Amino acid sequence: MNNTIFDFIGGNAGEWKVTDHITVKGKPIEEVSHINIVPSTLEKSKEGIWAYKGIISNTRYVERNELTKLQAIQPEIGRKEATCASFIAMDKSDEWWAMTQDERREIFEKKSHHIGLSMKYLPTIARKLYHSRDISEEFDFLAWFEYAPSDTEAYENLLKELRNSTEWNYVTREIDIRLTKIKN
Amino acid sequence: MNNTIFDFIGGNAGEWKVTDHITVKGKPIEEVSHINIVPSTLEKSKEGIWAYKGIISNTRYVERNELTKLQAIQPEIGRKEATCASFIAMDKSDEWWAMTQDERREIFEKKSHHIGLSMKYLPTIARKLYHSRDISEEFDFLAWFEYAPSDTEAYENLLKELRNSTEWNYVTREIDIRLTKIKN
Repeated sequence: MNNTIFDFIGGNAGEWKVTDHITVKGKPIEEVSHINIVPSTLEKSKEGIWAYKGIISNTRYVERNELTKLQAIQPEIGRKEATCASFIAMDKSDEWWAMTQDERREIFEKKSHHIGLSMKYLPTIARKLYHSRDISEEFDFLAWFEYAPSDTEAYENLLKELRNSTEWNYVTREIDIRLTKIKN
Repeated sequence: MNNTIFDFIGGNAGEWKVTDHITVKGKPIEEVSHINIVPSTLEKSKEGIWAYKGIISNTRYVERNELTKLQAIQPEIGRKEATCASFIAMDKSDEWWAMTQDERREIFEKKSHHIGLSMKYLPTIARKLYHSRDISEEFDFLAWFEYAPSDTEAYENLLKELRNSTEWNYVTREIDIRLTKIKN
């Protein structure tokens, strides 16, 4: 099995340089100058100023017809031209977590069109979702987006649409850190 | 937030005494005389002969109408009369994990009636599911069932029905350990 556990390490050095740190909602976290993403284990990382752990899981809401479309268009993380990134750490409310699968799916797609609206931005924006709630971490989710500098506006539009969706009413805390890749 | 992480520790002492150890399918694990279940952290346990970690997650398949019925009838773990237990460690196939939510739900409930058939046994059998796959543990799931000695036959019937279901075609490894609670 491939590794499913990753650490987002914020500190004074790393592959990604912080260009902006926005506390969108809720309690802030300490500002750092760099973030590194490293394959990890369940052991607590001692590196950096902070380290948030996230796990890659199976998909929770996507249905087959959607996945087929997504797989056809979504780019991989690590494209050479994708030197911009956004790290979004977030919590959803107790109300969200008390919902059943059908209720969450209803809000996720039928009311918020999370997959549908992402679709038009996906050819240019790579994304990866890490789950943290199940392992008692500080945040529920860590989301990572990568795009070329010329696609910054597309990313802002995607984010704006998501934040205006019904689903986002359940977001109780959100930290948005923008980054640029350090040339090797 | 409540703790979501637990260790199942197999060793020479513990709250539950092993009465039977059945390798239903796939690679066996070492036989132990006792199992203890302890609230844990992400750190690897050094206790016992083996220790498997599982996490409590939000429900993945249950829908609201089902949850309402389940909540009305399902007993809690830890009833005084429930001195029998079954610990089932299992893996599902890559094919299962590559499926989307709608495909897994289709097999889970429409074809296998996992919730529906469990319903008739639930008033007497308490159960709890721990997820392990997302944290790169040896098994995908750890399931724990508790029942009174007089409900042993009901438990066997539940298990027989589940094992005969379409869902169980995706089970690639299954260890079933039976236990009895040690009187304090």
